Amino acid sequence: MSDKQQNAISPARADDFPEWYQQVIRAADLAENSEVRGCMVIKPWGYAIWERMQEVLDRMFKETGHKNAYFPLFIPLSYLEKEAAHVEGFAKECAVVTHHRLEAKDGKLVPAGQLTEPLVVRPTSETIIGAAYARWVKSWRDLPVLLNQWANVVRWEMRPRLFLRSAEFLWQEGHTAHETQAEAEEETMKMLRVYETFAREFLALPVLCGEKSESERFPGALRTYCIEAMVQDRKAIQAGTSHFLGQNFAKASGIQFQSREGKVEHAWTTSWGVSTRLIGTLIMAHSDDDGMILPPRIAPAHAVIIPITPKEDSKASVLAAADALAVSLRATTFHGVPLTVEVDSRDLGGGVKSWEWIKKGVPLRIEIGPRDLAQGTAAVARRDRPHKEKAFLPMADIPGLAAGLLDEIQTAILARATTHRNEHMRRIDSKEEFYAFFTPASEAKPEIHGGFALTHWNGSAAVEEQIKSDLKVTIRCIPFEESPEPGTCPFSGEPSARRVVWAKSY
Amino acid sequence: MSDKQQNAISPARADDFPEWYQQVIRAADLAENSEVRGCMVIKPWGYAIWERMQEVLDRMFKETGHKNAYFPLFIPLSYLEKEAAHVEGFAKECAVVTHHRLEAKDGKLVPAGQLTEPLVVRPTSETIIGAAYARWVKSWRDLPVLLNQWANVVRWEMRPRLFLRSAEFLWQEGHTAHETQAEAEEETMKMLRVYETFAREFLALPVLCGEKSESERFPGALRTYCIEAMVQDRKAIQAGTSHFLGQNFAKASGIQFQSREGKVEHAWTTSWGVSTRLIGTLIMAHSDDDGMILPPRIAPAHAVIIPITPKEDSKASVLAAADALAVSLRATTFHGVPLTVEVDSRDLGGGVKSWEWIKKGVPLRIEIGPRDLAQGTAAVARRDRPHKEKAFLPMADIPGLAAGLLDEIQTAILARATTHRNEHMRRIDSKEEFYAFFTPASEAKPEIHGGFALTHWNGSAAVEEQIKSDLKVTIRCIPFEESPEPGTCPFSGEPSARRVVWAKSY
Repeated sequence: MSDKQQNAISPARADDFPEWYQQVIRAADLAENSEVRGCMVIKPWGYAIWERMQEVLDRMFKETGHKNAYFPLFIPLSYLEKEAAHVEGFAKECAVVTHHRLEAKDGKLVPAGQLTEPLVVRPTSETIIGAAYARWVKSWRDLPVLLNQWANVVRWEMRPRLFLRSAEFLWQEGHTAHETQAEAEEETMKMLRVYETFAREFLALPVLCGEKSESERFPGALRTYCIEAMVQDRKAIQAGTSHFLGQNFAKASGIQFQSREGKVEHAWTTSWGVSTRLIGTLIMAHSDDDGMILPPRIAPAHAVIIPITPKEDSKASVLAAADALAVSLRATTFHGVPLTVEVDSRDLGGGVKSWEWIKKGVPLRIEIGPRDLAQGTAAVARRDRPHKEKAFLPMADIPGLAAGLLDEIQTAILARATTHRNEHMRRIDSKEEFYAFFTPASEAKPEIHGGFALTHWNGSAAVEEQIKSDLKVTIRCIPFEESPEPGTCPFSGEPSARRVVWAKSY
Repeated sequence: MSDKQQNAISPARADDFPEWYQQVIRAADLAENSEVRGCMVIKPWGYAIWERMQEVLDRMFKETGHKNAYFPLFIPLSYLEKEAAHVEGFAKECAVVTHHRLEAKDGKLVPAGQLTEPLVVRPTSETIIGAAYARWVKSWRDLPVLLNQWANVVRWEMRPRLFLRSAEFLWQEGHTAHETQAEAEEETMKMLRVYETFAREFLALPVLCGEKSESERFPGALRTYCIEAMVQDRKAIQAGTSHFLGQNFAKASGIQFQSREGKVEHAWTTSWGVSTRLIGTLIMAHSDDDGMILPPRIAPAHAVIIPITPKEDSKASVLAAADALAVSLRATTFHGVPLTVEVDSRDLGGGVKSWEWIKKGVPLRIEIGPRDLAQGTAAVARRDRPHKEKAFLPMADIPGLAAGLLDEIQTAILARATTHRNEHMRRIDSKEEFYAFFTPASEAKPEIHGGFALTHWNGSAAVEEQIKSDLKVTIRCIPFEESPEPGTCPFSGEPSARRVVWAKSY
């Protein structure tokens, strides 16, 4: 490789961030576009990351008292018409089923059997789940209902992008119904904190928690809370949301119950979700110009052992040593789970194999060649460090050291993301500085600039609208972390109760 | 309760099997119909059974070298037109998406944004996955491709029935591509055996394995293999299928590769699947007039502890003893998994609570009341035995005994199902006996009669057609178990190479 091409991914992040993102996905073999517009194929390595996310989140949901269930894919049009704000926000771009049969006609297949009422492929399930809760809930004794669903959803996208915006995506959606407002509010916040913990501890994402402004609220919700991550081009990405729906959906769906006082009341509901968008967030937050970097606690494989077998006579013993090390490693645990170890015994050169796993982001690479074997050592490389940096460790010590190394990697990735976020999060008090912050330094590199501006706001949607139109910058959240500090909104000159987080976003 | 109503489910199996089935589902709170025609809501207890099935099967698939991936929900109409036999069999009744937007019109929502090419909601994914494999496979080195997908599929059903036939259902579909015919055939058979093992060892279903006749073959397959279970009304239910697709789908999708000899060849493919229909099979195979009976190895909860707290003064100590026993039980394992134990501390009568768990089919019920506590015992009841039968065991012994009891239950359920199947599987050699076997004894009880007839067949589709039209009986499989025994087809008088399994079926 020439000096200019010493990295595995081209272009580099600094040169073309959007294209770099696509190339990391391709190099790590995570997903690809299908021939169905906006629908992606999630390939085994990408899906394995999603399975790890599901495994961890599912446990967290069950530990907080939730059970899983499954509701219909199709929603009658009339259900969507019930909640006005919800329709306004969601019903616009969605897949509509109008026929239930195909017929052969002149050698082609044509839709037949028109449905009396068209069905919408769920963009989200508040309305269809609300209809079920209305059947189930009769008395305060039936509450709370605490369910989650793992499902696919469809939102027609005009500008699809792998993992970030696709017509179909995978997610979980929690839907709960409660006796009182206080309980529903507590649930909303509890699940936001579950997401925050998951993002920080497993995905190594130092997310900000806060509330959305009215203009960014979930259609039909009274309050929307979110976790917001900053990725490497300094844009924000909403990584999870938790909604306090008040009694809006309960009224639209008819979720009523007899209260302890014998009165008929509407339930208080919540919903909360994260999606395969988290995989896109992971990529943009942590990966480098050599490809994916996976935080160990979410990696489908913690380590890969790469036997290097240049000579026929030592091949069998190298392969045997690799397998033996894998067995020892798998007998150890990392944060309570047994180590997942791949052994890449393919008959390919060590460099070729090594680069594949670098691009896939596996935290630890362990190379064993004939010379290592003779010395009883192996070359251990960490994915969070430059690829040439290797530690030659006694093979017998590696199982004892692995969990510690993985912990160091997890900590280092979180620290790096936190430093990056802090470096690009700034308190800004003048309109000029704000506009300068969000204006690219040059036309040549428009992609990476700005960051999170902590700036006062008078609470007016008109101000948000103006800034969005001028700079494509929106309020990402009204953060909890920031203790309220009154000031002046630099855009209107009016008083402001607190700083909010402004950023460009995905 | 009067003598006539001493069972929890009404009607009894013997009186009205189809209605009994619906009532078991309702009593165990497994699922219900939604307001969307043919689409069911899978409730938490039903979904938990599916999760157990997923967990076990997913492990078995991974142990046999498969990985999971995810492919688009939507299939372009043109893909379905490519494989003629497949279209014929599948394209008929399916959900067709024709629009991608809704617009408000006179206060109503109407479909807008007509698609250039309609999309079909997948009834099965051979065509869309084939298109991906055609992109991925270039050389023999890229083979085999061994993937599985957990997904929802839609087949419009005119006569839906919970779990057995629903417009939308959940399943897994394995799709593999191979270099040679022999490898693809081996894969087809391997996965059939995985299903057989799963059915027998986990679901306690003594299924028959065999090949389908041409008329019952998967549209587009060269050979379809199946596992067939007999349920308590003596009908057959196809519980899983594995298809050898030859090169048909590879040719339709263009899955081509450069062979070891440098020639361009089409891959050999397979597909195999089981679905939430297995839950319906479980219910109909094992449940009794008191509700669901769950084989312990698939039960979401192995045991439930029911504290009985009639008196305020002993309540706290009974509840504490129940919790302590749960902790001890959870520290034990059953076939490698920690015991799952529910503690039903609700402030309800012991009988009410006990009946709920009987109806849900939990294998072990452990009742602890104040008197038991004083004596250091608990009343242990097995779901496979009459509900009044209880063993009063020293509480300290129960954790040590639990796995053994669960094994006995698992074995007893399989033995009962095997006896039932053997009692109603008969070698029949005359047309008269065959027709009598499948004709109800009286008009009053048309539901439970017949069984599996092992009868010779000349291989003619016309014979199958005649018998289907006369008796609604079809060939369920050409069984492997039966060693070929030449004879005479009693319907045609022609020679027959072997007996095949005939039955009415779901």
